Amino acid sequence: MVSERKIDVDLDGRNADRSYVITIEPGILDKVGERLVGLGLGTHRCAVITNPTVGGLYLERLITSLEGAGISAIVINIPDGETYKNLEEISRVYDQLLTERFERTSPIIALGGGVIGDMAGYVAATYLRGVPFIQIPTTLLAQVDSSVGGKTGVNHELGKNLIGAFYQPRAVYIDPTLLSTLDDRELRAGLAEVVKHGVIWDDSFFSFIEDNAEQMLLLNPDAIASAIDCSCTIKAGIVGEDEREAGLRTILNFGHTFGHAIEALTQYKEYKHGEALAIGMVMAADLSASMGLSDEALARRIEKLLIAFGLPTKLPERMSADELVVALHMDKKVKDGCIRFILLEQAGKVVLKTVGEQEIRACIKAATSSAD
Amino acid sequence: MVSERKIDVDLDGRNADRSYVITIEPGILDKVGERLVGLGLGTHRCAVITNPTVGGLYLERLITSLEGAGISAIVINIPDGETYKNLEEISRVYDQLLTERFERTSPIIALGGGVIGDMAGYVAATYLRGVPFIQIPTTLLAQVDSSVGGKTGVNHELGKNLIGAFYQPRAVYIDPTLLSTLDDRELRAGLAEVVKHGVIWDDSFFSFIEDNAEQMLLLNPDAIASAIDCSCTIKAGIVGEDEREAGLRTILNFGHTFGHAIEALTQYKEYKHGEALAIGMVMAADLSASMGLSDEALARRIEKLLIAFGLPTKLPERMSADELVVALHMDKKVKDGCIRFILLEQAGKVVLKTVGEQEIRACIKAATSSAD
Repeated sequence: MVSERKIDVDLDGRNADRSYVITIEPGILDKVGERLVGLGLGTHRCAVITNPTVGGLYLERLITSLEGAGISAIVINIPDGETYKNLEEISRVYDQLLTERFERTSPIIALGGGVIGDMAGYVAATYLRGVPFIQIPTTLLAQVDSSVGGKTGVNHELGKNLIGAFYQPRAVYIDPTLLSTLDDRELRAGLAEVVKHGVIWDDSFFSFIEDNAEQMLLLNPDAIASAIDCSCTIKAGIVGEDEREAGLRTILNFGHTFGHAIEALTQYKEYKHGEALAIGMVMAADLSASMGLSDEALARRIEKLLIAFGLPTKLPERMSADELVVALHMDKKVKDGCIRFILLEQAGKVVLKTVGEQEIRACIKAATSSAD
Repeated sequence: MVSERKIDVDLDGRNADRSYVITIEPGILDKVGERLVGLGLGTHRCAVITNPTVGGLYLERLITSLEGAGISAIVINIPDGETYKNLEEISRVYDQLLTERFERTSPIIALGGGVIGDMAGYVAATYLRGVPFIQIPTTLLAQVDSSVGGKTGVNHELGKNLIGAFYQPRAVYIDPTLLSTLDDRELRAGLAEVVKHGVIWDDSFFSFIEDNAEQMLLLNPDAIASAIDCSCTIKAGIVGEDEREAGLRTILNFGHTFGHAIEALTQYKEYKHGEALAIGMVMAADLSASMGLSDEALARRIEKLLIAFGLPTKLPERMSADELVVALHMDKKVKDGCIRFILLEQAGKVVLKTVGEQEIRACIKAATSSAD
């Protein structure tokens, strides 16, 4: 039995009002009601935002826990999938909350993966200028990454997550036992972000993942709880230093510059985010090596681990360098037209660099499957 | 010649990153370019959000100032009027910014009154999860109230400002000379908020307004600069203590509970915000007196000043108590179904109280014109 683990998220160390706790505990889903009462929000009402798939599995248990603590819930369903992560759906959620006269002291609870968390968080940030927000992430990706750090938002037809807000939750409740119903491909995709946290910040955690890869895939409770705990601790530490991505936080984008471009060019249909990230991390590691920042062996070590997790590490053959370069320029981190990458110096240590188009094109060529 | 006045807005005294300065200076419109460079945003691009009316009067001067400082501007027009303060228009602005590949380090400048400020601020809060925001308020209402405090947002068909975010500007540039082109009715409506600031916080400022009412209406530079300066100082002080309206900030809603209901019941067409506020302040003052919190003389003193500004102080005869009570329940400050009012104890001192329906109905009856 894995016991409860708690991670404090201290924002800037200056604003205690906005700091909160991430709790990782098997079975916490059935205790959310009492935990909410413990937060002292002083309300007997909440809204649960979920999708039919996750709701079908876990909504009843959540509602039972809430009602047991004297909290009634409005349930709002968003259709399943990234396609619905847009302003039209957000507007529909506002309509429902307003029709129900949902008040500004009552919390919005996200029960779902990254899409539900991002959307519910955006609604919480913007409904009546902000209401309390609670995260119950149900996918590994959400448990190790998107539920921590306060990034909320929706997609725009011109790109992903282009509309959004920084808005911190009041609490994050992570129940690793919920992963037992997770699709195997989703689990593997989530592990890509776990690898990223080791690579950018903590060499010993990176080694731990290498040593426990198989156990993580088997959902061994200790291995998976450690993966979540270390990931959240690393991310919370970075976000605590730089909430709004003015500096340090950009390192969390390791592998994402290429990854986002790959997702965009395949219309977000072919790859899961973690899969595109896996390819992007190998490309960024290779780019680091070709620029002489790190050694080639590190890139191969990362590639090997990602392959062990069953993740892709090569660009699809048909993707042209030209279209990829254009897509890279759409990245939110582009400044004065220059593309900046998070690159490796060694395992656990990265650096932000502007990279010229020639080097980017060489890297794309090397990463294309046919070049093998 | 009135010289430059500066007001520091310190948020919580804890987070220096988000604190900013309000500058009140005749002719500052022509210096915005150099001031922006002084902020050190490190960008050569900005977006100006305005409407055709204000843009026709002042856009060229602003652009000249920006270009003189080496800053190019994208201009985005929003049609004039509260009708366009909605999510559809916001979505149109996102489209334009994204099509122009507007980057996250470039500022959005609001050139206009409260509607433009609220909308541009909301876009700044939510475009790429937040970009720098600059306010150049052009109406008295915006100069003394809405440009200070970080409330941004849009209306929903079920009510005003129901969708929004707290988002602070990097700077507010107030040019009192812009008021020379302001419609007389707009000027009077803005003075209602000036009166409010005196009534809730500063007895001597309240007396100053009484003594200088005529000069303010004549736009005497000293009188109007003092009105703006004192209003901004009072509001900035309150917002600095309680940015997110968890406590103290609610006192800024003095007169607004009735005022918002009156605006809603007349579909925001009959009264300007300041006019509905004037009626609401007299009602709140009378309610305070009838509940024995303050004396009747204070209510009459407030009423006399508002009449001197040519503002309405009575409810329209046809408005029924029933519909007003229903509208009051839609207020964002309603908690557990109870209506709370900011009431007077004396000039410069207010208190938050839950008021029963019977007392509210008596107050509505007394405030209806026919009861005179």
